[in-house]
Amino acid sequence: MKVHELPTPALVVDLAVLDHNIDTMAAARPGPALRPHVKAFKCTELARHVADRGGHRAFCCATMREMEGMAAAGLGGDLLLANETLDAPRLTALVDRGDARITVAVDSPETVEVAAAAGAEVLVDVDVGLPRCGCRPDEAGRLADLARSRGLQVRGVMGYEGHIVGNPDRTARSEALATSMERLRRAHEDVGGGLVSSGGTGTYDLHDWADEVQAGSYLLMDTHYARLGLPFEQALRVAVTVTSTSPTRGWGVVDAGLKAFGMDHGNPTLDGFDVFFCSDEHTTFLAPGGPGSDGGLPAVGERRWMVPAHVDPTVAYHERIFVADGEDVVDIWPVDLRNW
Amino acid sequence: MKVHELPTPALVVDLAVLDHNIDTMAAARPGPALRPHVKAFKCTELARHVADRGGHRAFCCATMREMEGMAAAGLGGDLLLANETLDAPRLTALVDRGDARITVAVDSPETVEVAAAAGAEVLVDVDVGLPRCGCRPDEAGRLADLARSRGLQVRGVMGYEGHIVGNPDRTARSEALATSMERLRRAHEDVGGGLVSSGGTGTYDLHDWADEVQAGSYLLMDTHYARLGLPFEQALRVAVTVTSTSPTRGWGVVDAGLKAFGMDHGNPTLDGFDVFFCSDEHTTFLAPGGPGSDGGLPAVGERRWMVPAHVDPTVAYHERIFVADGEDVVDIWPVDLRNW
Repeated sequence: MKVHELPTPALVVDLAVLDHNIDTMAAARPGPALRPHVKAFKCTELARHVADRGGHRAFCCATMREMEGMAAAGLGGDLLLANETLDAPRLTALVDRGDARITVAVDSPETVEVAAAAGAEVLVDVDVGLPRCGCRPDEAGRLADLARSRGLQVRGVMGYEGHIVGNPDRTARSEALATSMERLRRAHEDVGGGLVSSGGTGTYDLHDWADEVQAGSYLLMDTHYARLGLPFEQALRVAVTVTSTSPTRGWGVVDAGLKAFGMDHGNPTLDGFDVFFCSDEHTTFLAPGGPGSDGGLPAVGERRWMVPAHVDPTVAYHERIFVADGEDVVDIWPVDLRNW
Repeated sequence: MKVHELPTPALVVDLAVLDHNIDTMAAARPGPALRPHVKAFKCTELARHVADRGGHRAFCCATMREMEGMAAAGLGGDLLLANETLDAPRLTALVDRGDARITVAVDSPETVEVAAAAGAEVLVDVDVGLPRCGCRPDEAGRLADLARSRGLQVRGVMGYEGHIVGNPDRTARSEALATSMERLRRAHEDVGGGLVSSGGTGTYDLHDWADEVQAGSYLLMDTHYARLGLPFEQALRVAVTVTSTSPTRGWGVVDAGLKAFGMDHGNPTLDGFDVFFCSDEHTTFLAPGGPGSDGGLPAVGERRWMVPAHVDPTVAYHERIFVADGEDVVDIWPVDLRNW
C-alpha cells in the first residue's frame, strides 16, 4: 500500500527519519548510556526496532501497562517504572512472571512497601526541581535504608528535570541542569548504588554525570521539541484529507482534530496553511490569500500532512502507526502499550 | 467488584446520573426529536442503553468508524454521518452491508459524488455560523439539485451552531441561534425534504423549528458544559490514586494526566484540590494549606475523583467505561468506536 492510499487520519512514521534519530542518539549515548522512554511511543514493535538498531537494552516506562507489555514482548531485560505505583497486586504479578528485570521508582515509605510486597528492585526518586514526584534530597538516604531493611535491592537514584527539558535556551538548560544534578548528587551520596538515571530529550547531551538518560521524544519529535535546535528530525506526521473548503469565506477543513492530536502544547501544524482551530474530528485552516476567488485553498479530496505539537499523547490517541519507507507503507505497528 | 478496587486511572460512569440525563432529555425531546451524537461517547453499549431507555432510534456520528460500528452492533436504523467524507470505498462497503440506513452530510460537488458512488442518502450541510463545514445557504439548492440528478434521496438540511452551544449566557445563545436558523431556513426552502437536523447539548431546549437535535454531551457532561446551567449532571469521572505527596513543599500527585483527559478545554478538576498542572501520566495538585506540616494533603494510596473539562476526547482516550451503580461496578462497556 502507498502512503496516499491510507484511510485518514493516519499516524505515519518515516522510517528513514526514525533511523536517523536512533543513530544520532546512539552515537551520542551508546548502549547503556540511554534508557529509551517507552511513554513517548507506547509501541513494542518500535521499542524492538530501537533495541535492534540503537543497541539499547534497558527501557523505562511510565505505566504498569507499559511495563507488562514490554515484559510480555520479550523486551524486559531491564525495565524501570520511572514512576510511583501503589498497585501491589499488579506489580507482584509482573515480578512473578519471572521473564523481566523489574525496577520501580520509590519516593515514600508507602511505595517502598509496595516494592517490598512485590519483590521489585528500586531506584530512589528525587525531586530535582520539577514539582511532581520525588523525595527531597535529604530524605533519600532514609528511604534507601528503609528499602534495604525490607530486603530490597537499591540500585541508586533517579531524578527527572522536566521543568528544564523544554527550555529553548541551551545555556539556560545547561545551568538549570547543574542545579538539578547537585540535588541528585547529594541524594546519591546518601543512597549509594551504581545507577544514576536522569534526563530527557532536551538535555540528552548536557548530562556529564548521570549513567543513563531517559529520553523518548527524540525518536519521533514534535513541533514543541523542534524549537530546541536538536539534531533529531520530525519522524511522525498525520495524513489527513481535505473534506471541505470555502474559498469565498476563506477557510478549509481537514478530517483530523483534537481527538487525533495531543493538544496540551497547542494546535498541530498543517503543511502550507495556518491552523485556525481544532474540533473533535476537524481542523479548520485559513486560506493563504484570505477570502476571495480561490484564496489559495487545496481541492476537496486532496491529501495533506499535519504535525503534532506534542508527540507523546498524540501516539497514545491512535491504535496503530503506519511505517513508511518513502511512499511505501512497509509495516503497521500497533500502539499496544496505550491505556492503563 | 467495587469502584474503589478498580485499577487506576479508570473511567467510571454513574448509572443513576446517566439515567437521569437520558430521562431529562427524553422528556424534553422524545423519540425522533433527538438524534444522539455518538461522537460524545464512542461506545455501542452506551448507545444501546440510550436507545432502550430514551427511546431514540436515530443516531448521528462524526466518523466512518462510528458509522460502521453502530451498523455492526445492530443500531443502524437511521445513521447520519454529520460530517463530510471523501472515502468512497469505505462508504460503499457500509451501504452495501445492507443492515443500516445510511445518510451522509454533503457540502460540495465532490462529497455529493462520493455519496452517489456509494448510494447513500444525503442531508445538505449548511454553514450556520461556525467556520467549519457546510455550504453557504445560497449554494444549498444547487447541491440538492446535483444530488437528485445523480439519483440520490435528499432528506433535507443540517446545520450545526457549534459557535453558540458553549456560550454560558442563555439569552445570547437564544439570539444567536435565531440568526443561525434563519440561514438554515433559507437553505431549506431551496433544498426541500422532510428533515431539518441541528443543535447540540447547549441549545437542546432552544430549538423550536428543527425536527431533531444532535446532542451527545448531555449524557456524560463535563466541567465546560456544567457552566451552562443545564439540567444534566456530571455522570463521568476518572478514579485516580494519590501516588506521591510533599507536605513540606505543598503539593501532591495522582496517577492520571493529559493522556487520560481531553485538554483542549483546560485542566480537569480534582475533588477537593486545585490542579497545578498535568503531565503525561500525572496531575500535580496543590495542598490546600500551602507548604507546611501536612498542608491538608491526602495520604499516599488514597483514592480521589477527577472530572474532565471536555468529555468527548476524554472518552476517546480510554479503552473502557466502568459502569457504577453506587459503589458496585455492574458492567464494563468497551469504547469500541474510538479511532478511525
